[in-house]
Amino acid sequence: MIIDGLQCGHFDRAAFEALLAGDVGGVVNTCGFWEGAVESMDSIGRWRDLVRDNADIAEIALTARDITRISQSGKLAIIMGFQNANLFEGRIRFVEMFAELGVRVVQLTYNNQNELGGSCYEAEDSGLARFGKEVVREMNSAGILVDCSHVGDRTTLDAIKVSEKPIAVTHANAQSLFMHKRNKSDDVIRALKDTGGVIGCAAYRNITGDEYCASIEAWCTMVARTVDIAGIDSVAIGTDKSHNFTAPDYAWMRKGRWTRGEDYGASAAGKPLKAAPPEWFTKIEDIRVIPDGLRAVGFSEAEVAQITHGNWLRLYEATFKKS
Amino acid sequence: MIIDGLQCGHFDRAAFEALLAGDVGGVVNTCGFWEGAVESMDSIGRWRDLVRDNADIAEIALTARDITRISQSGKLAIIMGFQNANLFEGRIRFVEMFAELGVRVVQLTYNNQNELGGSCYEAEDSGLARFGKEVVREMNSAGILVDCSHVGDRTTLDAIKVSEKPIAVTHANAQSLFMHKRNKSDDVIRALKDTGGVIGCAAYRNITGDEYCASIEAWCTMVARTVDIAGIDSVAIGTDKSHNFTAPDYAWMRKGRWTRGEDYGASAAGKPLKAAPPEWFTKIEDIRVIPDGLRAVGFSEAEVAQITHGNWLRLYEATFKKS
Repeated sequence: MIIDGLQCGHFDRAAFEALLAGDVGGVVNTCGFWEGAVESMDSIGRWRDLVRDNADIAEIALTARDITRISQSGKLAIIMGFQNANLFEGRIRFVEMFAELGVRVVQLTYNNQNELGGSCYEAEDSGLARFGKEVVREMNSAGILVDCSHVGDRTTLDAIKVSEKPIAVTHANAQSLFMHKRNKSDDVIRALKDTGGVIGCAAYRNITGDEYCASIEAWCTMVARTVDIAGIDSVAIGTDKSHNFTAPDYAWMRKGRWTRGEDYGASAAGKPLKAAPPEWFTKIEDIRVIPDGLRAVGFSEAEVAQITHGNWLRLYEATFKKS
Repeated sequence: MIIDGLQCGHFDRAAFEALLAGDVGGVVNTCGFWEGAVESMDSIGRWRDLVRDNADIAEIALTARDITRISQSGKLAIIMGFQNANLFEGRIRFVEMFAELGVRVVQLTYNNQNELGGSCYEAEDSGLARFGKEVVREMNSAGILVDCSHVGDRTTLDAIKVSEKPIAVTHANAQSLFMHKRNKSDDVIRALKDTGGVIGCAAYRNITGDEYCASIEAWCTMVARTVDIAGIDSVAIGTDKSHNFTAPDYAWMRKGRWTRGEDYGASAAGKPLKAAPPEWFTKIEDIRVIPDGLRAVGFSEAEVAQITHGNWLRLYEATFKKS
């Protein structure tokens, strides 16, 4: 069974079926990038309808135990996540309300600085701001996992310190393996390790690099090297796979409403909008090759289980709202 | 005639009458501190009604020329301002729309970091973030004056560099005269001077200090010392006077919705919620003593005119949307 710590895009029944065919038992979806409170409730509503319409193969998971139960019944567990804290719209009291509505993972910033802290794409990272400190502690008590994937390194280190529970980098790689603003310094990864956090290794070409995308062996070698930095208890999978994305979706994801100019996110000028998927991961269901790939680079059965789902389940158990 | 670059609170007819009795011809009000786009439109709507209901003594000014005309007709010119950029809710395209609705002054941040930049009350100031750069240029072309009063020094210096038009610090003093986070370094004040910007000297005790509040002579001495730093073309008045504020207003102003804890803004634990007004400025209409106070500390008639209204009018002419 695989838990994918981060996917995005327009999910549909075909996507659910492909994920199940790929032996994915649970996936954190992306309910929003830039959306405010009401738009985020709209998105949660659409997700509830989508899952209700496909109740024979999918169910929203609220706890780690839910994920195991749903997966064991042959269905896909959907864990509702957001890649930005803008759903809270500056209101500390909205954190527990969105937790009650089923949100379980929230990234502190997306690609731009906000009132919580700095993003990896800003020239300067302020560290965790006053509201960011409040929100991290509130997420701890409300039962939402803190995600720092697109967050700046300084803010991420602050969040690790301020958080009373372990945090996640749901979808990023190590900068020491592939240098990119979106990837994390070894300092951040070691701080995750020291506090029980988890990094989900990404399979998005722009932040993984051609070398590690070339084959499943190459990608699993990257995972093994990440384990060398983070330890076996702190490495998992967060592919960043997107479903049914077209040019307007990339424009929305990168530019939102904050600029009339160009912004390329993890991509760059002159590159195609959609990065080619890794050679081993052209279809969603190809994700099923990961466990054998991990075995082939030398991981034991117990280690494969940790990387593919055990570490996420442990972290979710430690951080998700009970009930 | 006096133009006050910043006041706040719940204005009413009595406040308008008191301002006119104080020889105030124009005032930048505070339409919002924390409010989002729709709430800000609500506030603009309430202001329009208030001014319409008192059309015999007040009128909304859209240009510098409006201010002169309205004032010369014996009425009070209301210039609509916001102490935070949250009215834009992260949308670059909202800047010109709020300009069309009559907004003429917007502070980039209030007391907390936001997606534009850093605040004077945050431990670290990131400087102007990516969205902040976009918004400053958009405010330039849309005709809204950039205000950096509560903004961090680094972000203020960035805004001065990025802005194609002069900017304002509508209500703050020099840190070299009274040390407070809310006041500005001489570097910031000199950068304002070099670019045609203006600082409005405040008369709010928490950021002015007891010495400069003790008498009109003392406060005008502070203004004169500010002129020593900023030059005669870059100093004006921004009292920060509040109307009809009660405890819940202070709580809203300082805590908004971002914290359940305490925050004191420019005040401090153990101090009363409302700082005592300067001895010379206990009633709104007392503001009329300023011109004579400036004369008494040695300013010429031409200099008094610059400080009391001319510098604001010049800056407004340079930055406000025409018509």
